[in-house]
Amino acid sequence: MNAMKQLLAATVCVAAFATIGGTASANDELIKLQGTAGQWAIPAGNYASQRFSTLTQINTKTAKNLRPVWTFSTGVLRGHEGGPLVIGDVMYLSTPFPNKVFALDLNNNGRILWSYEPKQDPNVIPVMCCDTVNRGVAYGEGKIFLHQADATLVALDATTGKVAWSVKDADPGKGATGTSAPLVVKDKVLVGVSGGEFGVQGHVTAYNIADGSRAWRAYSEGPDDQLLFDANTTSMGQPVGKDSSLKTWQGDQWKIGGGATWGWISYDPELNLVYYGSGNPSTWNPTQRPGDNKWSMTVFARDPDTGVAKWVYQMTPHDQWDYDGINEMILADTTVNGKPTKALVHFDRNGFAYVLDRTNGTLLQANKYDPKVNWATHVDLATGRPEVVSQYAPGDQGADHNTKGVCPAALGSKDQQPASYSPVTHMFYVPTNHVCMDYEPFKVSYVAGQPYVGATLSMFPPAGENNLGNFIAYDVNDGKIKWSIPETFSVWSGALSTSGGIVAYGTLDGQLKIVDQKTGKQLYAFKTPSGIIGNVNTYTHNGKQYLAVLSGVGGWAGIGMAAGLTEDTAGLGAVGAYKALSNYTQLGGVLTVFGLSN
Amino acid sequence: MNAMKQLLAATVCVAAFATIGGTASANDELIKLQGTAGQWAIPAGNYASQRFSTLTQINTKTAKNLRPVWTFSTGVLRGHEGGPLVIGDVMYLSTPFPNKVFALDLNNNGRILWSYEPKQDPNVIPVMCCDTVNRGVAYGEGKIFLHQADATLVALDATTGKVAWSVKDADPGKGATGTSAPLVVKDKVLVGVSGGEFGVQGHVTAYNIADGSRAWRAYSEGPDDQLLFDANTTSMGQPVGKDSSLKTWQGDQWKIGGGATWGWISYDPELNLVYYGSGNPSTWNPTQRPGDNKWSMTVFARDPDTGVAKWVYQMTPHDQWDYDGINEMILADTTVNGKPTKALVHFDRNGFAYVLDRTNGTLLQANKYDPKVNWATHVDLATGRPEVVSQYAPGDQGADHNTKGVCPAALGSKDQQPASYSPVTHMFYVPTNHVCMDYEPFKVSYVAGQPYVGATLSMFPPAGENNLGNFIAYDVNDGKIKWSIPETFSVWSGALSTSGGIVAYGTLDGQLKIVDQKTGKQLYAFKTPSGIIGNVNTYTHNGKQYLAVLSGVGGWAGIGMAAGLTEDTAGLGAVGAYKALSNYTQLGGVLTVFGLSN
Repeated sequence: MNAMKQLLAATVCVAAFATIGGTASANDELIKLQGTAGQWAIPAGNYASQRFSTLTQINTKTAKNLRPVWTFSTGVLRGHEGGPLVIGDVMYLSTPFPNKVFALDLNNNGRILWSYEPKQDPNVIPVMCCDTVNRGVAYGEGKIFLHQADATLVALDATTGKVAWSVKDADPGKGATGTSAPLVVKDKVLVGVSGGEFGVQGHVTAYNIADGSRAWRAYSEGPDDQLLFDANTTSMGQPVGKDSSLKTWQGDQWKIGGGATWGWISYDPELNLVYYGSGNPSTWNPTQRPGDNKWSMTVFARDPDTGVAKWVYQMTPHDQWDYDGINEMILADTTVNGKPTKALVHFDRNGFAYVLDRTNGTLLQANKYDPKVNWATHVDLATGRPEVVSQYAPGDQGADHNTKGVCPAALGSKDQQPASYSPVTHMFYVPTNHVCMDYEPFKVSYVAGQPYVGATLSMFPPAGENNLGNFIAYDVNDGKIKWSIPETFSVWSGALSTSGGIVAYGTLDGQLKIVDQKTGKQLYAFKTPSGIIGNVNTYTHNGKQYLAVLSGVGGWAGIGMAAGLTEDTAGLGAVGAYKALSNYTQLGGVLTVFGLSN
Repeated sequence: MNAMKQLLAATVCVAAFATIGGTASANDELIKLQGTAGQWAIPAGNYASQRFSTLTQINTKTAKNLRPVWTFSTGVLRGHEGGPLVIGDVMYLSTPFPNKVFALDLNNNGRILWSYEPKQDPNVIPVMCCDTVNRGVAYGEGKIFLHQADATLVALDATTGKVAWSVKDADPGKGATGTSAPLVVKDKVLVGVSGGEFGVQGHVTAYNIADGSRAWRAYSEGPDDQLLFDANTTSMGQPVGKDSSLKTWQGDQWKIGGGATWGWISYDPELNLVYYGSGNPSTWNPTQRPGDNKWSMTVFARDPDTGVAKWVYQMTPHDQWDYDGINEMILADTTVNGKPTKALVHFDRNGFAYVLDRTNGTLLQANKYDPKVNWATHVDLATGRPEVVSQYAPGDQGADHNTKGVCPAALGSKDQQPASYSPVTHMFYVPTNHVCMDYEPFKVSYVAGQPYVGATLSMFPPAGENNLGNFIAYDVNDGKIKWSIPETFSVWSGALSTSGGIVAYGTLDGQLKIVDQKTGKQLYAFKTPSGIIGNVNTYTHNGKQYLAVLSGVGGWAGIGMAAGLTEDTAGLGAVGAYKALSNYTQLGGVLTVFGLSN
């Protein structure tokens, strides 16, 4: 092992050396690494969350020659969302609870250079609403950052795996858990929190990379000093004014108001803004929390140095469906409605694809990316508010009325599984759910650490259809779907597009698929060991391009299998819809690395 | 699923139809199937346990073009010994505890046609000495036979997975468990039992396929009517006479005398004899059980219709090392010492390769297949007894003396991992351990269901060496090793040889390797998801040849990882020797199927 550790030290030193001469900021290194096509140094590939690579060896002509070149079982069974980082000759991988981290040697078919397994109280498991997932680690300044299930943020030495520092971000005893990948921005590491089903008060927190001290924390609800809002400058079209959140809640409900921040974070170095979304207001039961419940279901654009919000946009005021707004914010300089735009593109759980001017939050477009979406007719671009169809709005027909046939279901037309943007085609490649629901609210009381949901759900495909998912190409110039590939189950895997003209994604039944960006034509498919809910990435090693993806079925869609649930309404309604999944695949976390035949 | 079930029914009907017109015996069908190179209908490939196939598409020239074509995670983490059967278009696979059985559709990249999971008391887990393994299912007359961990033998309808019948073979409350693959012979299914570390009285039992009723049971120790010995005809050189077992035990010790039967069973249809071995006498501590402890450590040749023994041969009388005699008996018509011979070849745990005339049990050859073996100088071919080196015989230097540097270790120069015989080269390809031990006996009392071992062991490679295993080619004509490939860890995977001139095996660190039968030169290697302790097999589907192997580290060698043990002497001494394994691989059961590139 000494030889391997030396090799690893050398590798990391090369990376560290690249920062010397610039500023001491981790940012510079990461911007350099994200511009290096052979690396995958940021969970989403780059700060813009495009999940795009300029690599071209694997392309529309060669994709048929792909085959697995090595594989790695993680030793953990439940759902494997997220994916690995690649920095130099080392791949960094994290698992669902117990959140093992592995440093794998690319020079040696993934031999383990070091591994880390935190000591965590297993009582955190029942507090994780939608499987015990972990969406990956972040890298910066020679450290690997892991957000553990128990809401501890830990910094590991990238060379040795030794703990550099560790900080408790939130209290799992109150339902706050860690599932998301952190993001390193400048000299800070940013991390959100899960727990919208347990009445957390959601927040994003920035810690100083050097020592783990807290730089700032921004809550999703509460007084302005907790929101880090400036009443005069933080805007949604115009300044939001004083107490913009407090005014939209009854009494102190904001203190257990949800707005969890468990999704992805993007960053625009030029504008110096980070972007992320907040989740559902707590409780789910809408009649128990009147008002717009700001700033749940909101896109935040914040200054990463201070945390202060520049602009916000709430997609689903007074959520009645659990349409969390946490899905990734893709930053793309592209053409929208015929005009070159610094766009932020966000495929929301509520079924609308939002396109905003990311410099100021102006809403430019909000079109349905699944034609079955029925809870709202459209979004008013002037006010930004959806035109809700009362028939499909739980609570509108009575506090405990069972609202039937709502599309999409609570898990949305898309959940956290990130889309990809290809500058080659100017198209967005979106893994989608195609699922509707019956939603029956019931009264619930808040008890710290207990589920605070108040709704019974059933899920099913749209009437007359069988496929629970589609993989689509979406054009934000005209706001239309260009092609769509029906899939048996929801596409719960993150996509990848490249300059090779390909787009890659995984299916819940375990296929890694490569299709043509232009046409959606399938170029390659391989049945991996288990259902794929991980995100595909790509990198080069010794001059050769590889694709990597975690299989390991689970997540919200696979929660029945992952947690051994059988009641149709269990798993917040997901168990019934995905029951057939166990005829296709079984649990088990495995990384598969694909390369081209010689 | 209906369409799939119809397809499966059709497939099995074709197989069943093949038997009409012959006798009603499952035997005839299996003999036909083992002669059909595209099938793998018997756990060891054929009744002779040769693990050989006449298929030639994958050969010394084409092996370099192999690549995984589909994979299947079993959803079970602990050690995956054994391997799948292939009958028609269906693959049948079993897992370690909880002993799931899957029927996988070869027409659809392994989609699950049906699965079966028994309800078993998890208290059986601590009664399994050397991981919770299961070495595969057997097939016969449209039924799949599973020997569950809790020593229940169950017959499943091969088309539907429904339980046809179920019978309790032994009592896990007394330490008897099921790990071995059953063997179907004629209208019976034969099954042995594990539990030599718990003082079972080992037995093989034959059940009638039709209804699960017991046909016969033959114990390893006890009175002649329990042994199914005929004092006048059952022979070892000459008739063994009356009470051949009772005379070699002190008092009633034979009742808890071990001789478990947890290995493989072979069958010679022409001679109408089945062959298998018995394991260690209980307790391990040798001074507590004086005598030869017959018929532990013994090869039995029995009539499958009546169970009566035709001949026996005890390899290690009064075992002082735990050198179980259960390793496979390979039946080969080959040249031994220059003469054409109906041979039985057995690579024993004790480090000697025994060659017997399988018609009558005459011992023809007994040479060391690891030059480091030091517990005996040689085996006297006339008496059949080893010449023990007292220095390396625990108990000889005092009842509690710590005997140091004994080679091989208790897990033998080879354990259950089966070798392969190639009629192409007349060579045996043997996965071996290269491990020595310190062995310190201590006094132990029998308590039903509690470990009855009485020894503390440490294991390590031979002095001055680092490799814990070798994969060897062994020639029984002259009793010599022809070539040897050193491996970092024990080779705990069953080998496969074919008419294509290749031999395949897996390594504990997860490599599937293909080498040239003649030279041992490596032709192909692939890093599977986890360490391989499964057995490689081969089959054709739609005219194309495939190789299949389970990865999933564990077994005795991997018990530290599988059971989470860390003390060097835990796992009966195996934990210390294989500690570095976790730097190479993690747990997780995955089938990988390999095919040739187009």
